[in-house]
Amino acid sequence: MRILPRSIEKLINEFAKLPGIGPKSASRLTFYLYKLPDSQIEVFAEAVKQLKSNVYACSNCYNMSDQPLCDICADKSKNHNLICVVEDPLDVMAIAQTGKFPGVYHVLGGTISPIDGIGPEQLKIAELHTRVKKLLDDGKPVEVIIATNPSLEGDATSIYISKLLKPLGTKLTKLARGIPVGGDLEYTDELTLTDALNYRKEI
Amino acid sequence: MRILPRSIEKLINEFAKLPGIGPKSASRLTFYLYKLPDSQIEVFAEAVKQLKSNVYACSNCYNMSDQPLCDICADKSKNHNLICVVEDPLDVMAIAQTGKFPGVYHVLGGTISPIDGIGPEQLKIAELHTRVKKLLDDGKPVEVIIATNPSLEGDATSIYISKLLKPLGTKLTKLARGIPVGGDLEYTDELTLTDALNYRKEI
Repeated sequence: MRILPRSIEKLINEFAKLPGIGPKSASRLTFYLYKLPDSQIEVFAEAVKQLKSNVYACSNCYNMSDQPLCDICADKSKNHNLICVVEDPLDVMAIAQTGKFPGVYHVLGGTISPIDGIGPEQLKIAELHTRVKKLLDDGKPVEVIIATNPSLEGDATSIYISKLLKPLGTKLTKLARGIPVGGDLEYTDELTLTDALNYRKEI
Repeated sequence: MRILPRSIEKLINEFAKLPGIGPKSASRLTFYLYKLPDSQIEVFAEAVKQLKSNVYACSNCYNMSDQPLCDICADKSKNHNLICVVEDPLDVMAIAQTGKFPGVYHVLGGTISPIDGIGPEQLKIAELHTRVKKLLDDGKPVEVIIATNPSLEGDATSIYISKLLKPLGTKLTKLARGIPVGGDLEYTDELTLTDALNYRKEI
């Protein structure tokens, strides 16, 4: 016996496929949408439909953009010799939102993960090499900050990139690890505490 | 400076409008969708768009349905003289999923809530009165179970309905209140404990 109409069930099923949304949340979201005026539902449907339209990968940093060259790469006020290497566009947003980074980015598009069949050639690593080499050939001092996530795959990718770029003679750095703001020593895991000790800074 | 493409930002904003979804979850959902094949994105967009198509209110119980008369009301094996009064279609689903209720439903479409400008006339209360009266006029013994939520509005609606139906001579019951399965006496609030005492059952 069908308790809910087909169209309602369908959207509940679609919502439930999304990460972090269980069947209960999916029902709640569907009924919330159902109670909205038709025009707002239409706006939502259209936003989903148009998701990939007019999205380019920037030809320089491979971040997502409205244009072939993204706003950050087109910005002359940025330090184009300071390149922050990240996994995906959300990481660019996170760093940009600090408002403290004067440089530009390079989006890898993921991490090296043999278990998922992703090798260096699936990522924009060769492109990073070419980009850095070109800047160095122009006689500029380049710093590459590797800002992959502190995970097994992120660290492996970081090591791979540093080995690849080292021979070029560029300055290579990575993000500091330690206790996050608002953290609690008592509840900090051993690896983070070890990192915090190793990265300690003179005051 | 625009960090993300317009179309991506748009969907993030749409997701962030939904209840229980903050800006971080909205980004995550959007990027999850972005990585799906076009066909699956299209299916999702279509499900949103078609949400209200072919959805009727059942002419008998006002539950949502594919047909003018819902599957439950059309089911001859149900006890049509045992009517469970609920606030909305998700409540029907919750009770139907227990598999223990042999009767039918009546969906009010909300609760009496003067603060939101919802009075009895905005709900399907007059229709419930007519429905019960008709059954009683046919000489059938009717039981109405009031299953509104245990909230201020739910209780007010329950009292209103019971006062309205009492003169008809129907049997009126309401759902038991007490400690939920898996609950803990120590952490149960006073009102629930009082209810549990009042509803105590001989063993």
